[in-house]
Amino acid sequence: MALALSLGRRGQGRVWPNPAVGCVIVNAGRIVGRGCTQSGGRPHAETEALAQAGPASRGATAYVTLEPCAHHGRTPPCAQALIDAGIARVVVATTDSDPRVDGQGLAMLQAAGIVVSTGLREDEARADHAGFFARTDLGRPMLTLKLASSFDGRIATGTGESQWITDTPARRLVHAMRSRHDAVMVGGNTARKDDPELTVRGLGIKAQPVRVVISRRLDLPLMSKLARSAKHIPLVLCHGADAEPTLIHTWRDIGATLLPCAIRAGQLDAADVLQQLGKHGLTRIFCEGGAALAASLIDADLVDHLIGMTAGVVIGAEGLPGIGAMGLSRLAEAPRFTLHETRRIGPDVLHHWVR
Amino acid sequence: MALALSLGRRGQGRVWPNPAVGCVIVNAGRIVGRGCTQSGGRPHAETEALAQAGPASRGATAYVTLEPCAHHGRTPPCAQALIDAGIARVVVATTDSDPRVDGQGLAMLQAAGIVVSTGLREDEARADHAGFFARTDLGRPMLTLKLASSFDGRIATGTGESQWITDTPARRLVHAMRSRHDAVMVGGNTARKDDPELTVRGLGIKAQPVRVVISRRLDLPLMSKLARSAKHIPLVLCHGADAEPTLIHTWRDIGATLLPCAIRAGQLDAADVLQQLGKHGLTRIFCEGGAALAASLIDADLVDHLIGMTAGVVIGAEGLPGIGAMGLSRLAEAPRFTLHETRRIGPDVLHHWVR
Repeated sequence: MALALSLGRRGQGRVWPNPAVGCVIVNAGRIVGRGCTQSGGRPHAETEALAQAGPASRGATAYVTLEPCAHHGRTPPCAQALIDAGIARVVVATTDSDPRVDGQGLAMLQAAGIVVSTGLREDEARADHAGFFARTDLGRPMLTLKLASSFDGRIATGTGESQWITDTPARRLVHAMRSRHDAVMVGGNTARKDDPELTVRGLGIKAQPVRVVISRRLDLPLMSKLARSAKHIPLVLCHGADAEPTLIHTWRDIGATLLPCAIRAGQLDAADVLQQLGKHGLTRIFCEGGAALAASLIDADLVDHLIGMTAGVVIGAEGLPGIGAMGLSRLAEAPRFTLHETRRIGPDVLHHWVR
Repeated sequence: MALALSLGRRGQGRVWPNPAVGCVIVNAGRIVGRGCTQSGGRPHAETEALAQAGPASRGATAYVTLEPCAHHGRTPPCAQALIDAGIARVVVATTDSDPRVDGQGLAMLQAAGIVVSTGLREDEARADHAGFFARTDLGRPMLTLKLASSFDGRIATGTGESQWITDTPARRLVHAMRSRHDAVMVGGNTARKDDPELTVRGLGIKAQPVRVVISRRLDLPLMSKLARSAKHIPLVLCHGADAEPTLIHTWRDIGATLLPCAIRAGQLDAADVLQQLGKHGLTRIFCEGGAALAASLIDADLVDHLIGMTAGVVIGAEGLPGIGAMGLSRLAEAPRFTLHETRRIGPDVLHHWVR
C-alpha cells in the first residue's frame, strides 16, 4: 500500500477533477502490476495496473489507495475491471465519499466473491486525496497558502523589493509544491506588481498547473506574462459580475477562462471563489498571496495547509506584511493552525501548519 | 571535557563578570574532582575541583573549559593552584583572550613541567564563553534577542493584547533562557505597556538575573512591578544624560542602578548602551523587545543570537510588529543571520539564528 500511495501521488496536480489514485497488484508475493491515474484523469490506476499484470491478475491481490469506482463515467467502472480480471482480494486504503461510489464499489467487488478489506494506511490516503474529498464533500478545492517571509514576517521591503528573501532550496521547493497542485493562485495586486509567470520551472515537467488570478474588476495588465502565455498554459480569472464587459471579452479572446464570482462587502467572496473553482473541476490549489487575498482566505476559514518559509533576514516595520488586515480585536478570535512539521530548508526555515 | 563543559554551563547567568568555567580532574581513569565557577564568580572551577579531589590531584589530569588564570585577582591564580596540587597534565578547551591571562596561564603550567594541550572541543567552549569573550574583546556583553510572534510576525493584536501568542512550553523555555543570561533587557515602551517583572519563574532558581530597562528620559511608572522589586532584584536603567535629575534621584532611591549612556540622532545609542552594560560587568544579555529597541540593536549589528518563537496563529496587518522601522531601502542591505537550529517546541516553532 505504501508503494500504491507513492504511485498515486505522482498524479497530483495533473489528474483533476479525478483523484490521483495508485494501484499495485501482487500475485504470490510478486508485484505484477503498478498503476496510477494518468494525466487528465484517465486511464484510472486500476486499468493501468491490470493491463501491466495481464493474466497474472488471476487470483492476485490488488492494493488501491481509494475505493474503486462503481459507475460508468467516461471509462467503465474499475470495480468491474478488477472482477473481470479475476482478482481474488482487494485492499483499499479509504472509501470514496463521492455519492456515485460511496461503498458501491466495495459492494460490487464483494458480490462477485472478492475478499475486500479497507482502512490500510487510511490517514495517509485521506491526506493524499484531500483535494478530491474537499471538492466532493464541500464543493471547493483543498487550499494551500504559502508565504515566504523575513524573520519579522515581511514579504518585501517598503519599496516592494522581494527578490529574493528565501534562498534557492526554498524557491525550488515552491516549484515542486506548485507541480503537485492543480492550480497556482494569486490576487490581482500581486499579478500587477510582480508580473509573475506562475509556472513550474526547473523540474522538467510537461503539464503546467492552471494559473488562477482573483481580480474583481479584471484590471490586470494585458501585456503581462500571464496574458501572453494564456493560449498555451491555462489561465483562470475569477472576477465580479460588475467587471467591464469589454475586459471580459478581451480576456476571453486572449485565451483565459472567466469565472464570475459573488461579491460580499465590496470584495469578491472568497468562499464563492473557491466554490466556482471547485465547479471548474480543480481539487488542489496553491495560493501564493498577496496579503489581501491571504487575509480573506484565512478569515473565511478556507486554508487547509499554511506553509511558511522564513529567512534569517530582518526587513523592519516599513516592509510589506505577508497577511493583510484581519479586523481582529481579541487574540482569542485569531485563527489558529496546528504544526505539522518544521525543518531546515537550505539556509531557511520551513514550517508547515494544518487547520 | 564534555562533562567539564556541561558543569561550566551551570554557572551561566550567575558568575558575571567572570566566565562560567567547568573543571574535571581525572586520576587513573577515575573522576576525582568536579567543579564550576560558583555564584558571584568565585571560587573558580579549578579551586572547587581540586578541593574535591584532595590528594588524588597528584599526578592527575585536569580538564578545564578555559585557560586557567595566571594573575592575582581576588583569588590566587588557578594555574598556581594546579601546580601546587601536583597535577601532571592539563587539557584546556580554549585559551583566554583576557590580556591578564592570554597564554600566561598555559606558560606558567608548562614552566612547572605540566603537560599542556589546548583546543579540545574548542568550538563549544568558545560558544559557552561567548559573553565573557565579547566583553573582553569588544567591551560589550553577548546579546540574545528573542521574539515570540504569530505566523505573520506580530507580537500583539492592534489593541496590544499579547498574552498568550505562544504556548506553555515556549514560555517555559523563555524562563530557562533568562536564567542562563546575566540580565534580561527591555525597552521603555515595553516596560510601560506590559508592566513586566522580568524574573525567572517556575524553575526554582535562587539568583535572579539583573533586569535592564532602556529609557532615555526615565519616564517609567514608579508603581510598576520593576520599581517595587528593585530593592530585592537588581534593576539597571540605561538613560540619557538629559533625563530629569529628580527622576534620576528617585530611581536611585528606589534601588535601581543608573547608567548614563550616549545619545545619537535623538535616541540612546545602542552601541554605547551595551558598552556601559559591559563596564557594569554584564557578559550575557537577553533582550525581549520591544520593536524599537530590537530594530536599533539589529541595525547597530549588536545581535549575536536571534531567537524566534512562532505560533500557528494569524493576527493580520493591524497587529503590532515585533521589529520596528529599519529604514532599509534595498533588500541587499537587510541584515542576515545564519540558521543554527529549528525545532518544534510544544505546538510552536523555535528558530534560532546566529550572526
